[in-house]
Amino acid sequence: MHRTKVKIVEEALDANNTIAQANRADFDRAGVTVVNFMSAPGAGKTTLLERVAGDLPGVRMGVLEGDVQGSLDADRLAARHVPVTQLNTDPGFGGECHLDANMVRSALPNLPLDGIDLLVVENVGNLVCPAEFRIGEDVRVMVSSVTEGEDKPLKYPLMFRTCDLVLVNKIDLLPHLDYDVDKFLYHLDHVHPDVERMMVSARTGEGVDAWREWLMRVATGDRAIA
Amino acid sequence: MHRTKVKIVEEALDANNTIAQANRADFDRAGVTVVNFMSAPGAGKTTLLERVAGDLPGVRMGVLEGDVQGSLDADRLAARHVPVTQLNTDPGFGGECHLDANMVRSALPNLPLDGIDLLVVENVGNLVCPAEFRIGEDVRVMVSSVTEGEDKPLKYPLMFRTCDLVLVNKIDLLPHLDYDVDKFLYHLDHVHPDVERMMVSARTGEGVDAWREWLMRVATGDRAIA
Repeated sequence: MHRTKVKIVEEALDANNTIAQANRADFDRAGVTVVNFMSAPGAGKTTLLERVAGDLPGVRMGVLEGDVQGSLDADRLAARHVPVTQLNTDPGFGGECHLDANMVRSALPNLPLDGIDLLVVENVGNLVCPAEFRIGEDVRVMVSSVTEGEDKPLKYPLMFRTCDLVLVNKIDLLPHLDYDVDKFLYHLDHVHPDVERMMVSARTGEGVDAWREWLMRVATGDRAIA
Repeated sequence: MHRTKVKIVEEALDANNTIAQANRADFDRAGVTVVNFMSAPGAGKTTLLERVAGDLPGVRMGVLEGDVQGSLDADRLAARHVPVTQLNTDPGFGGECHLDANMVRSALPNLPLDGIDLLVVENVGNLVCPAEFRIGEDVRVMVSSVTEGEDKPLKYPLMFRTCDLVLVNKIDLLPHLDYDVDKFLYHLDHVHPDVERMMVSARTGEGVDAWREWLMRVATGDRAIA
């Protein structure tokens, strides 16, 4: 029983990787760099995108917005005058908890790939399954809010281990929390030694310049990321 | 392809419900009330349990602790002198993002059902899939942290719609956030009209008395919950 389940899961992940490679090839042909942007619910992904949308000189950004239901985040980003495509995962019983390569593939015809240089895919808010499914991205960025506690790298290791950049968000709240930044970074280095990290506040704008510059480096190929 | 997937999912949920009923029967025989306790990562489930553990006069509480990896939360609760059983979902590729009835069933032999009146099952931190899988619980409680934003009921409606109590946690941070409590409650009532809700701070203890009393009412059968 268990072995059957593992086999089905492995086959599903193999199939996903095949489709992810096809997506990757299409993105390469169009010259579009793709960021898979992930976090727990409410960690601040959309606000961090609002902060940089329309403000990346020389880089045309588009967004693929993944949600179980609704278009709240897409509406927020469309107001910043970047092209946004909505992708809902809800098939009628609560919705998938992540984007996979096939869902992203189904959205390709709606993406203005020839008009953008950088595509940020905002994944469903979840620290588990999104990390398991590649979608054809170049890089993975995750947001970890300081309100979530210092232990998250240990509890959700695959997510922290497979990302290229960790944005530690909501640092404006640090004076009001029992949160030890050093302890978080210690846990982070335990599961993903020396992964690039930035302390930011989407609310106050602190650290956002570094995030913007990182995105521009990624979009222009001027980077050294594994 | 899509139809096949839906069919497999429906069969999986049917199988889950059958096992959940078997769990339910075992819990009833032992006279144990079961709470399925859910939230996004870092919303404060464990701290809210620490606040009441060992402090429910006349009610013997036990905890089943669901995590992808590790036993951090179980260790915290064991320090409060309540029986805690760890259940990890990690099968080697990132772990399941939720508990299902079969996982809970596998833990039954390790649960001291004859020595407790109330079992709180702390689910994996996730606002999507845990809502889809019944585990044999009497009631569902979810925690929504004010740091996650007011829009979460609209983005994760199944979770909010299927719970019996919503704990709105971290209200000590309200003075430092752009969070409109009335807007959150408006969205909550949109997806689950009049669901019971409590404003709490696990950190300061505000509202914890009401949470403790609710658990005691549930455990002693003195309640009127749908």
